[in-house]
Amino acid sequence: MNLRTLLADLPIPILQAPMVGATTAGIALAVSRAGGMGWLAAGAMAAADIEAEVAALKAALDAPFGVNLLMAPKAAPERWEVDAALARLAPWYEELGAARPALPNQYAPDFDSQLEAVIRSAPPVASFTFDILTRDQVDALHGAGTLVIGTAATVAEARAWAQAGADGVCAQGFEAGGHRGNFLAGIEGSLVGTMALVTTIREAVDLPVIAAGGIMDGRGVAAALALGADAVQMGTAFLLADEAATGATWRGALAAAADDPTRLTRAFTGRYARGVENRFMREMHDVQEDVPAYPVQNRLTQPLRAAADRAGDPEMMSLWAGQGVKLARPGPAGELIRRWWDEARTAGDAVVRRTRGEEGP
Amino acid sequence: MNLRTLLADLPIPILQAPMVGATTAGIALAVSRAGGMGWLAAGAMAAADIEAEVAALKAALDAPFGVNLLMAPKAAPERWEVDAALARLAPWYEELGAARPALPNQYAPDFDSQLEAVIRSAPPVASFTFDILTRDQVDALHGAGTLVIGTAATVAEARAWAQAGADGVCAQGFEAGGHRGNFLAGIEGSLVGTMALVTTIREAVDLPVIAAGGIMDGRGVAAALALGADAVQMGTAFLLADEAATGATWRGALAAAADDPTRLTRAFTGRYARGVENRFMREMHDVQEDVPAYPVQNRLTQPLRAAADRAGDPEMMSLWAGQGVKLARPGPAGELIRRWWDEARTAGDAVVRRTRGEEGP
Repeated sequence: MNLRTLLADLPIPILQAPMVGATTAGIALAVSRAGGMGWLAAGAMAAADIEAEVAALKAALDAPFGVNLLMAPKAAPERWEVDAALARLAPWYEELGAARPALPNQYAPDFDSQLEAVIRSAPPVASFTFDILTRDQVDALHGAGTLVIGTAATVAEARAWAQAGADGVCAQGFEAGGHRGNFLAGIEGSLVGTMALVTTIREAVDLPVIAAGGIMDGRGVAAALALGADAVQMGTAFLLADEAATGATWRGALAAAADDPTRLTRAFTGRYARGVENRFMREMHDVQEDVPAYPVQNRLTQPLRAAADRAGDPEMMSLWAGQGVKLARPGPAGELIRRWWDEARTAGDAVVRRTRGEEGP
Repeated sequence: MNLRTLLADLPIPILQAPMVGATTAGIALAVSRAGGMGWLAAGAMAAADIEAEVAALKAALDAPFGVNLLMAPKAAPERWEVDAALARLAPWYEELGAARPALPNQYAPDFDSQLEAVIRSAPPVASFTFDILTRDQVDALHGAGTLVIGTAATVAEARAWAQAGADGVCAQGFEAGGHRGNFLAGIEGSLVGTMALVTTIREAVDLPVIAAGGIMDGRGVAAALALGADAVQMGTAFLLADEAATGATWRGALAAAADDPTRLTRAFTGRYARGVENRFMREMHDVQEDVPAYPVQNRLTQPLRAAADRAGDPEMMSLWAGQGVKLARPGPAGELIRRWWDEARTAGDAVVRRTRGEEGP
């Protein structure tokens, strides 16, 4: 089966975005069972856990699902760089009463081992973010029967994934929450709104396109389909779902968010990511370019963010969320996607009435 | 008539964006005659010219049209500030063989006089960008029979326009070409993608919403309608139209643009605006925050940009364009909007087929 057919055969072409820290096997199961496509966020998982979780999903599901890996670079920072980063974070550790972390031996799971685990466990689809696979790696996944989706923040990145043999691209628009997936250009040259990104990528590459960023309900789903997307990926819209692992402090901050609340920041992890602006983002704003690159800063702020979460302090934890965050709604994930699909049908009907000059309801 | 009815009664709910330097009475006429809504970009016009052009459009048209004003602040820069700006621009004047401009008495047309001219000439609709009208100013326009649209780059700005009594808001997404209209917050807090902006503004205010930014063809039109927009505003999509005043150098640069070509810059005018990146933008990048605020820098770079245009040098002129620029197509404006409307109908039909589980064509 190719990816276009797989997406066209989904009863509901809504993919639940893989979100480290918020995605659970439970939400993936619920979404795939309701006719969408659940996704395992394996970026922070050890190889053995990936194999076990994929096997469990395969056993539990008679429907497609996906696995996402983050292509973190191998980190071997200089000692002085880590010391400088820890010194910068010291006041925050102190304020939260968190111990300064021991120097880690490893800053992120080894990507090659993770990829081997994905190939061995052979999920229906795997997606990749932060970098691009080689043609050989794509071939190895295909050999295992796994379709490959590359994350693209620009037209140039979509072309690169097409060249590498990917089966489709996830067009990650400017609105999207969490980490930016850009890998070819710097952040300034990698920010394209979803409306423009989906249309320009669709014209540039002959691959299925999955629209991501700012899609919060059925109207957004219908809009993405109108743009020519084969499916949508929704993340922020699932953050308040019953099955999401989003903690209470994070949920509370999302529900209480003001107008236009999100910003891009590099301060938490060493890679630009979008979340609800808080005190840590504001106070670190001017030094964010100086912190060590992902995954080093990410690892060093982990205990800080965990301590803030335990303390119920949203001002010092990463509140990843996209620009549509104020439209997030609670509920069981399966009910959410069925409701969005009903709304998408209604929105599509309204477009047809308007474009055919018929009277409204 | 209220704005919602006016937009619902348009045969084609496409507004041609007012673009100083690219919009002509000819394109406004062609768009309104074809069933859309033409727009006069009066931002750089003297009051008497506004009255004459509105009167001519009223006489020529049996269909609605609009007039846009830029709410430029009154500029009274210190002499040293202007001298510093001119010194920074001196190498560029020299390279182009352009004379360093004499110090202007005025940096932009007087907004109050322009507004009085709009009220006297009473166009069906007027829109405002860069700032917000007072309730009294809105009332004066209403008294003349003119509906008022405010430009909003954020939900907070849409709420402010609703408070001021506006009849509708133009939601200017991140993708949009030309100047950003933000007025409540700085640039970083005023960048929201079209997909997220339209949906969040629609939820926040009970006014008609016009979607702008990244809409380049009928698929984009259908997508915006699916999001709940009452109409769309398209600018970049008209830049290659036969009737547009877009000069040959600008047209050539747009047609030759690479993937993902646009950037935001403050260097040309002292306000952030989006255009195709070129040498001036790159070389001025690091000092762009230091140049005098709009309209001062805008006035000082005018002779430079004009000289570059005459010399056919796209590297030193402002090539305003939105993120979908690669999808711009040439042709008569009336034909363009009819084609987009046909495409929107096709896109709407496809959404209905997908959401109702019917087979594709």
